Amino acid sequence: MPHVVIVGGGFGGLAAARALKRLPVRVTLIDKTNHHLFQPLLYQVATAILMPGQIAAPIRQVLRRHRRATVLLGEVTGVDAGRRAVEVRTGEGRAERISYDFLVLATGVQHSYFGQDEYARHAPGLKTMADATMVRNRILSAFEEAEGERDEARRRAGLTFVLVGGGPTGVEMAGAIAELARLTMREDFRRIDPLKTRIVLVEAGPRLLPSFDAGLSEPAARQLRGMGVEVLTGRMVSEIGEDGCRVGEDWVASRNIIWTAGVAPSPAAEWLGLPKGKVRVRYDLSAPGRPEVFVIGDVAYYEQDGRPLPGVAQVAMQMGRHVARAIEARLLNNAPPPPFHYTDKGNMAVVGRNFAVFESRRLKFSGWMAWLVWSMIHILFLALPNMRLTVFWQWVWSYFTEQRGSRLIVDPRNSSNP
Amino acid sequence: MPHVVIVGGGFGGLAAARALKRLPVRVTLIDKTNHHLFQPLLYQVATAILMPGQIAAPIRQVLRRHRRATVLLGEVTGVDAGRRAVEVRTGEGRAERISYDFLVLATGVQHSYFGQDEYARHAPGLKTMADATMVRNRILSAFEEAEGERDEARRRAGLTFVLVGGGPTGVEMAGAIAELARLTMREDFRRIDPLKTRIVLVEAGPRLLPSFDAGLSEPAARQLRGMGVEVLTGRMVSEIGEDGCRVGEDWVASRNIIWTAGVAPSPAAEWLGLPKGKVRVRYDLSAPGRPEVFVIGDVAYYEQDGRPLPGVAQVAMQMGRHVARAIEARLLNNAPPPPFHYTDKGNMAVVGRNFAVFESRRLKFSGWMAWLVWSMIHILFLALPNMRLTVFWQWVWSYFTEQRGSRLIVDPRNSSNP
Repeated sequence: MPHVVIVGGGFGGLAAARALKRLPVRVTLIDKTNHHLFQPLLYQVATAILMPGQIAAPIRQVLRRHRRATVLLGEVTGVDAGRRAVEVRTGEGRAERISYDFLVLATGVQHSYFGQDEYARHAPGLKTMADATMVRNRILSAFEEAEGERDEARRRAGLTFVLVGGGPTGVEMAGAIAELARLTMREDFRRIDPLKTRIVLVEAGPRLLPSFDAGLSEPAARQLRGMGVEVLTGRMVSEIGEDGCRVGEDWVASRNIIWTAGVAPSPAAEWLGLPKGKVRVRYDLSAPGRPEVFVIGDVAYYEQDGRPLPGVAQVAMQMGRHVARAIEARLLNNAPPPPFHYTDKGNMAVVGRNFAVFESRRLKFSGWMAWLVWSMIHILFLALPNMRLTVFWQWVWSYFTEQRGSRLIVDPRNSSNP
Repeated sequence: MPHVVIVGGGFGGLAAARALKRLPVRVTLIDKTNHHLFQPLLYQVATAILMPGQIAAPIRQVLRRHRRATVLLGEVTGVDAGRRAVEVRTGEGRAERISYDFLVLATGVQHSYFGQDEYARHAPGLKTMADATMVRNRILSAFEEAEGERDEARRRAGLTFVLVGGGPTGVEMAGAIAELARLTMREDFRRIDPLKTRIVLVEAGPRLLPSFDAGLSEPAARQLRGMGVEVLTGRMVSEIGEDGCRVGEDWVASRNIIWTAGVAPSPAAEWLGLPKGKVRVRYDLSAPGRPEVFVIGDVAYYEQDGRPLPGVAQVAMQMGRHVARAIEARLLNNAPPPPFHYTDKGNMAVVGRNFAVFESRRLKFSGWMAWLVWSMIHILFLALPNMRLTVFWQWVWSYFTEQRGSRLIVDPRNSSNP
């Protein structure tokens, strides 16, 4: 039976694995973590609204009824495309070589500090669950430390949050931190006033949400300003240190800088011996010169109507399902696969608890209605039914009580083991 | 206004803080973590049944309506009982000295490896949330690594779990790991058979649950054996290493050893200049010679009817409430405080999903009915209403689906930050 190896259990990889269930193929899905992460809600874990387990589904639980699918926790270190095999590290000093008939690379993107990798220490980004729990620890600890701090300048720097990058993640984080301070924590402190929290959202370009329609940037910025967020567009962050960052000409004293700016593709292209960067895939999502290798999701570059497709979950999922159709055509009909076509179902970003922006090819709107649509769609796309129910419940609860689901600081140093 | 300083936000400290609300006193509660931990359910986090946020309530959220109470995240490093002040480290290199009129020490216990501290590395214990998430990572990773392991002996050692200590935690962990392997993960693997998981529960004494009535040990052991757990009583674990441990005469190859045996009191006695160990408190729970210092919960030694009170949540909570009455007597009536008297409402331990043992002074029974009582009582005692609802829901869901709430491995090394 032909063997399909999928690298990456994100939206693209998981959609491919699920769609391949109906074909007579064996599937092996390899991921570095044991869970499929619902990345669009990662900012809610980082800001304590949701618990990690509510947006992370164990990949093998999702695929447990797919009897021909094997899930392997491991890190792919390279591809031998000539011999059709991937190299996987499955544990400390343990490697495995897995042969494939078809390979699906759905390895996504990681942060990019545009060459300034030393920024990472002081300005963590938000891609994995480990990142999100670390950022949550930092945000919650900032308030705790300010309550214990007697020095006024240090206290102010401790209550200043800077978000570097005004895309969806920056906008969503800014709104969520503002509400954490102004609503959830309003009554919780005795020495500090959480209302004095300063939140600065910096975007180098001329407007927030550059990937959205220009008409939606201003409503989002207005909404954020109404929540007390300082929105600074057209300003570069040129220096990041332990005690603050340089925004344009000004130094902003802050001990809480979060990187919400650039991403860079994972090394799928290098594995295939192609130029560094995203992989320019062919009409059927296969890699150039390798009809048995498909590259999908954020790491793939695919133009439609003269524009590259955006790095969003919808694109990855549709690509994943397309791969199953392409493999089916090759295997069963021995026919050329159909070309991939992306159907745009819309794109969204949310600002706090009542406001979102929505755009699709035909429709653009913002406000409460968009927020309601955003909430419903995000619940529907969670991978497991129990996640849908508990996230729905948590949102309803939080909406009325203004409390959050998981204001938990878990410091590994707080172990009781001697 | 008199100032009451409480050290520790566990069952005792939190009960004291809540009960003090009705008195005209200022309260400062100091804890090393930001959350009140519902320890009786910690084993459920360690075995992925519940999510960490479901059993941890932010202390300042619990006390936010108590306007005269300040919560401080910090580590108490010493007590100056003569000058009535505590030393607190509130951050890196930052210390604070806090004066008190009354002091409540509710600092609990930590693990004790009976002098063999090198065991800690290979046999972590279970006291804090950091411990529980680490043990969860280890248990879940054991199955993942076994799936990637080709060497049969190593695979078998990777699927062998040893619990050192047959008290409630050991019994509860053994049952929960057995069901994780035999029910939850039954269909999830392709290369290993989770049914072959070996679970060994070792108790040095002659019977499981030594703190319970002798008539309840055998039913608990029978229930565990029925779930495939090897119950070894009257055997000492005399050596623990990376690859296994010595149980009596035999070497058990295991890469998953969990310490569920001894505990040792926190250093409250040393702080007060008393002999090391638990603090033998007076009739009103005050420390000998220090009527303004109360010691409560697991770190206090108090005899009633000729027997020391056990280290359980009920005792700590009743002691916490008593402290408020004692302070009231001193402050308002200038009268000698009433003596403390513990009302035993019963003690329980649970074995998997249908069986528990229950004992109180009058009543002893085991089985399904005890399990139902256990479930209801544990839900009622959770600190926040949202926790009660989501835990209830998770248990109902898990009962019928056999799935768990949070099979999440979050490895800090899996950060995407370069």
